[in-house]
Amino acid sequence: MATNAVADTTAVDLGGRYRLTRDLTETLARPLSPEDQTVQSMPDVSPTKWHRAHTTWFFETFLLAERDPGYRLYDPDFGFLFNSYYEAVGPRYDRPRRGVVSRPGAAEVGCYRRHVDDAMAGLLETPLEPATADLIDLGIHHEQQHQELLLMDIKHVLSCHPAQPAYLTLDPPTAADRNPPTAWVDHDGGLTDIGLGAAPFAFDNEGPRHTVLLPPFALASRPVTCGDWLEFIADGGYQRPELWLSDGWAAVQESDWGAPLYWCDEDGIWTVFTLGGRRPVHSAEPVSHVSYYEADAFARWADARLPSEFEWEAAARPEAPTDDALVLHPRPVGATAPLLGDVWQWTTSAYGPYPGFHPAAGAVGEYNGKFMVNQYVLRGGACLTPPGHIRPTYRNFFPASARWPVTGLRLAQDR
Amino acid sequence: MATNAVADTTAVDLGGRYRLTRDLTETLARPLSPEDQTVQSMPDVSPTKWHRAHTTWFFETFLLAERDPGYRLYDPDFGFLFNSYYEAVGPRYDRPRRGVVSRPGAAEVGCYRRHVDDAMAGLLETPLEPATADLIDLGIHHEQQHQELLLMDIKHVLSCHPAQPAYLTLDPPTAADRNPPTAWVDHDGGLTDIGLGAAPFAFDNEGPRHTVLLPPFALASRPVTCGDWLEFIADGGYQRPELWLSDGWAAVQESDWGAPLYWCDEDGIWTVFTLGGRRPVHSAEPVSHVSYYEADAFARWADARLPSEFEWEAAARPEAPTDDALVLHPRPVGATAPLLGDVWQWTTSAYGPYPGFHPAAGAVGEYNGKFMVNQYVLRGGACLTPPGHIRPTYRNFFPASARWPVTGLRLAQDR
Amino acid sequence: MATNAVADTTAVDLGGRYRLTRDLTETLARPLSPEDQTVQSMPDVSPTKWHRAHTTWFFETFLLAERDPGYRLYDPDFGFLFNSYYEAVGPRYDRPRRGVVSRPGAAEVGCYRRHVDDAMAGLLETPLEPATADLIDLGIHHEQQHQELLLMDIKHVLSCHPAQPAYLTLDPPTAADRNPPTAWVDHDGGLTDIGLGAAPFAFDNEGPRHTVLLPPFALASRPVTCGDWLEFIADGGYQRPELWLSDGWAAVQESDWGAPLYWCDEDGIWTVFTLGGRRPVHSAEPVSHVSYYEADAFARWADARLPSEFEWEAAARPEAPTDDALVLHPRPVGATAPLLGDVWQWTTSAYGPYPGFHPAAGAVGEYNGKFMVNQYVLRGGACLTPPGHIRPTYRNFFPASARWPVTGLRLAQDR
Amino acid sequence: MATNAVADTTAVDLGGRYRLTRDLTETLARPLSPEDQTVQSMPDVSPTKWHRAHTTWFFETFLLAERDPGYRLYDPDFGFLFNSYYEAVGPRYDRPRRGVVSRPGAAEVGCYRRHVDDAMAGLLETPLEPATADLIDLGIHHEQQHQELLLMDIKHVLSCHPAQPAYLTLDPPTAADRNPPTAWVDHDGGLTDIGLGAAPFAFDNEGPRHTVLLPPFALASRPVTCGDWLEFIADGGYQRPELWLSDGWAAVQESDWGAPLYWCDEDGIWTVFTLGGRRPVHSAEPVSHVSYYEADAFARWADARLPSEFEWEAAARPEAPTDDALVLHPRPVGATAPLLGDVWQWTTSAYGPYPGFHPAAGAVGEYNGKFMVNQYVLRGGACLTPPGHIRPTYRNFFPASARWPVTGLRLAQDR
Repeated sequence: MATNAVADTTAVDLGGRYRLTRDLTETLARPLSPEDQTVQSMPDVSPTKWHRAHTTWFFETFLLAERDPGYRLYDPDFGFLFNSYYEAVGPRYDRPRRGVVSRPGAAEVGCYRRHVDDAMAGLLETPLEPATADLIDLGIHHEQQHQELLLMDIKHVLSCHPAQPAYLTLDPPTAADRNPPTAWVDHDGGLTDIGLGAAPFAFDNEGPRHTVLLPPFALASRPVTCGDWLEFIADGGYQRPELWLSDGWAAVQESDWGAPLYWCDEDGIWTVFTLGGRRPVHSAEPVSHVSYYEADAFARWADARLPSEFEWEAAARPEAPTDDALVLHPRPVGATAPLLGDVWQWTTSAYGPYPGFHPAAGAVGEYNGKFMVNQYVLRGGACLTPPGHIRPTYRNFFPASARWPVTGLRLAQDR
Repeated sequence: MATNAVADTTAVDLGGRYRLTRDLTETLARPLSPEDQTVQSMPDVSPTKWHRAHTTWFFETFLLAERDPGYRLYDPDFGFLFNSYYEAVGPRYDRPRRGVVSRPGAAEVGCYRRHVDDAMAGLLETPLEPATADLIDLGIHHEQQHQELLLMDIKHVLSCHPAQPAYLTLDPPTAADRNPPTAWVDHDGGLTDIGLGAAPFAFDNEGPRHTVLLPPFALASRPVTCGDWLEFIADGGYQRPELWLSDGWAAVQESDWGAPLYWCDEDGIWTVFTLGGRRPVHSAEPVSHVSYYEADAFARWADARLPSEFEWEAAARPEAPTDDALVLHPRPVGATAPLLGDVWQWTTSAYGPYPGFHPAAGAVGEYNGKFMVNQYVLRGGACLTPPGHIRPTYRNFFPASARWPVTGLRLAQDR
Repeated sequence: MATNAVADTTAVDLGGRYRLTRDLTETLARPLSPEDQTVQSMPDVSPTKWHRAHTTWFFETFLLAERDPGYRLYDPDFGFLFNSYYEAVGPRYDRPRRGVVSRPGAAEVGCYRRHVDDAMAGLLETPLEPATADLIDLGIHHEQQHQELLLMDIKHVLSCHPAQPAYLTLDPPTAADRNPPTAWVDHDGGLTDIGLGAAPFAFDNEGPRHTVLLPPFALASRPVTCGDWLEFIADGGYQRPELWLSDGWAAVQESDWGAPLYWCDEDGIWTVFTLGGRRPVHSAEPVSHVSYYEADAFARWADARLPSEFEWEAAARPEAPTDDALVLHPRPVGATAPLLGDVWQWTTSAYGPYPGFHPAAGAVGEYNGKFMVNQYVLRGGACLTPPGHIRPTYRNFFPASARWPVTGLRLAQDR
Repeated sequence: MATNAVADTTAVDLGGRYRLTRDLTETLARPLSPEDQTVQSMPDVSPTKWHRAHTTWFFETFLLAERDPGYRLYDPDFGFLFNSYYEAVGPRYDRPRRGVVSRPGAAEVGCYRRHVDDAMAGLLETPLEPATADLIDLGIHHEQQHQELLLMDIKHVLSCHPAQPAYLTLDPPTAADRNPPTAWVDHDGGLTDIGLGAAPFAFDNEGPRHTVLLPPFALASRPVTCGDWLEFIADGGYQRPELWLSDGWAAVQESDWGAPLYWCDEDGIWTVFTLGGRRPVHSAEPVSHVSYYEADAFARWADARLPSEFEWEAAARPEAPTDDALVLHPRPVGATAPLLGDVWQWTTSAYGPYPGFHPAAGAVGEYNGKFMVNQYVLRGGACLTPPGHIRPTYRNFFPASARWPVTGLRLAQDR
């Protein structure tokens, strides 16, 4: 996939970043047929064409309809279909039923995108008030989030097909299939500043910047690998209740978990479904598609624990954000590995507001705050996260049972 | 819809009927986009492209693979995807998940159909053993059943869309919107022959022909109309438990039924979703999309009852089968109306085997017999039933709660 | 259990039968603690004390409250708690929640019973109009039905306890543990009268008497035994989809059925839970606690079929009703066995009205008619059916999936 | 209820505290019939007799069976029935099915308790190793927890009865039914020590003691009252999605919440079910039986927020624990009110381990740690919490949707 061409969007101007981002979404959808783009394989998944339309609806609703008096809505019914959860904007179509809506089709969604892009091009040529520019910036980052969701979701859709079709051709790993050693990196703790300051773009939930007191701790030099996980399985990890949180053990029993999502034991060989199709598990790759429960049980088995999101951020702070292209699958690691860019890493921190957090006024304020319950924070960004969308303060969040995001872990210990 | 062109298939030879039937399926699918053809709106519904592929799989599996040594399977994986319920043929994809399978797409299903049609054309040019010809005939009638299912199913799919799109342009009724009078037609009962004899094609469940003893009875001269149903609603029919079977009353409460499926009260005007979109309820049209429970409750309210399937057949026996084109919506009736061709009519007869019934050997024998429990027989054929597929002995069957087929009723009384 | 003392109630007068029936209910409840009487182990089961109260409520509501002007309701709230399904009598407590209602307790239900029995004793001493006597008779037979339900239900309750406690001491079978041979008894069929005539008591659903035309058929000389069933299991009966109705196969998969309810494979020895506790399966005993689906699959495996309810009744007509005491477990059979009194026998007949059937007016009319859908008729009476409550025309009915009644089968064949 | 007699257990010796605690459990169960003690009204609720037996099993399993060589198990089957969640101790009966187990009955559970108490009396007379004494202490506090659960649970059981019976006579509030004013109490924040030090008994989850950095904040001088809640309802609190977390709004829709659990609008008068039966809502009483979602929505509506558990503990630290008797219903408050003893107060803190937390080795270590996910911390103790069981460091926890504990709230604000 020629995603290098659209690599890092942070260096260019707003209009340029708008176009690069919008183009990348279409590039990501291109390998998919209209039928592929229609399917919703479980309630958490949205169809590809829904992602393409919803991100467009964001610009239409919050920018064009509000700030461009001459703008004509592409189709007034789309508000109902493509609102995701903004209660303030009106009623919306039931989320688990998105796969039932065949129209507009994939091609017409393309027309909708062009209609909005044309109008946005006009708006971008005018002098923009800062609030308007900020909102466009939010829309760009919002679309980047949906680019990752689009890839997560289509991976799940394709995995449900008995033939396990590939999304695209993906090179096999070049490194040796050997589980690398790990090391502990000590951190002193103490009073530590957390969250984004004045700097460039961040979501509202990354602030306000504030100080926390951290105990001394150590963080592993690399994420947990598939090789580690194979040892956990071999040691009966999924059969030993004493390793698990009570809710986690219940999930293991109910859902009959015995390996990460997408893993399959084919006559003694563990394979994994990837966007490039099914292939053997590779020991040096970071494990992914594990729930918080599994991450927590693994850590207990390994005489370690998960880090808090603050410990993680303190350790990651000196690290420069990656500016890779999309790699679409976690890369093999060595004895050390950057904290950013291959797998999201579960933390022990429940997702909640930082002290002094107040959501923005109006519908856009529904963006992050209303999900601050029953979820756990993940840090680090993943191979499916678009270039320029990863930073050390970024707070992703999912329920403890979620396995379809690219969720992995890095161990921590008390010091 | 130019379905007149393919009208009655009974007059032509086997090869001709094969082609006409196969063509009609494609004609029915033509107004639908690839996305429309992918959606499964509830577990009972199958995607359009699944119907197109499954009917093709029937010919491939039971004819070509077994009787044409030179035949090459189009794709060996299709057996798993497009087997509906034939346990003897091997495992099959979970029915409620058919909407998750995006591939093959609608276009490739077209290729699959042509591949099989070409091979079938070859087979049809050879001299056929009677058993082979019978199996092809069965395949043709099987495909006709799926033509009706395709239309029932896509109607449900489109009805779930907030914009209620039309499948095609459908003329509004030309008759006056007036509820016609009804009359009772007396029948003497007595010893009566039931089921198909030596004659042309019938499904196995229509025989063996046998004699039953019928009491004297009367049958209404026309089906129950929407006008009748409006009176039932106005008289509190859906609020009076004494009118309902216990299971029916439970269904009313649970599913919050207050009118037939597809009806909607829009500020005091009752409308109904049709394949031509939403339009006002027309009093003279036969009511359809009611469950057995509703039909039974209506009959009790009207001081009548539903007929048994034998009473119905005895009354219908003199009637010539219709040879209409597909009309796609029940036609307004007058004081009398033919028993065949507008709506399926619920009977009090549980679906079971006739005395001496034995299913055919092999997988084809799974066709009808294995569903002979927990279902009720419907008679008469509907506006969506393909031409040539209606006959007085035909036994359709659905669970008592089904509302998405074109299900109506005709009243009976003891004499 | 000294139930011989209360044996046959048909020979005595109405007041005597009232007292014997009421006493038997209390005798049946006596081995049960207040806690045992409170439990509802699944939605179909009712607590013992509910049965004791509901049968009492019947006499209070339909006899005393309506026909005894001086009668004082024991507790006006009981109507809501102990109405089972009579919609005409007012709202009622949600059936699956009966186990949540701790009050009145078992002892107070005893007081309630005595209060009503005292008032009924007064009423029974007065000259009774025929309609009143008929209603008392109905109440007596209603209570007999609940005596069987009480035993079925408490058997299920006790079976859920890990220690599998016995309801009472039950002698082990004395006959040899050998599967007896079977024979086919031919019947000519022809025009046959079905249903009760003028004679003594019957439920409304046993009439009107009418004539049906039966084909020639044969009925097995004994019910299917546990020995037969062991062969069915050994031959892979529960693993072969071709033997099963589609709904039946789905039930096998979903509920993981591999033997009748209450059977357990303990290291290669099949045991069965009885009211006398768990004990080895005995080959010569009629099999019981099988669903319609299992009965149907067994018959197909045995190259036979189930009889229709009319065939069964035609064969049973000459047979004198049994007047045994309650035996509480099916007795071993020989090469022949009476049709009545050990296990209910599934028939292919869906439960529906006989021609000309009309339920009685008023709430009592809700007794039978409103269940005439989605159920199958069973004939013959079981070891748990109270003496005097079995007759050849009796129509019991349950859904095809029911296994907690004493449900068995007797095979039939075409001739 | 003469619970004053058993008031504070902290002042007496271990044996004395053992006896007082064991006696209080029996005192609490005394007003309940065997039937009352058998019922499980929802999966979260346990039957009274189960609580009585489970707390006994704790002493039998962890003390007598392990440390008294002469001890004879009362019944070896009880381990399976009365283990709650200790995986290390072996399999256990399915929690939502506890209400199905009628045996042992309430009286036999009394025998079981006496059997264990006699053996414990012997053990308590011997010189105890510190670890043994600690374990007995843990068993005492474990039983106190179940005393509160017993009361919460039986309240739910009785509330499900249509007659809404009272557990016992409860005096109506004596204070005026007037909503008192509230004030904000400022706190400076800063580095603050949290959790129990060397001092007397605490659960493992209350430590290790550690330092946190708190921002300045204010806490309300009294909990939110029923009067406040009536205003929230009147202002459309349950109808305005913008006030709710996304999961909370989903819960409101699904469960049709419009007031706290146990509240009922009877023709314009709000009533509440209490252990003394149903009575009018009293404005000056702290509101209780609200979920985290409701507490959070209320706080947003009131332009405030919930406190973190650290803020709450910092504010409560100077406060002396209450030593009241059980009062069984929240008491009316004035302009200020103690933080302890009337209602549990939701905090924004997800329940997790303090830095350095390690559960005890062995089965007892399963006590608290394995629940550290998907729950929120509540602080303060409630009217149903036994005397001597409340302290400022105590961490109670429930899922955000729980409403059957005595859950209320106290507002906080940033400063």
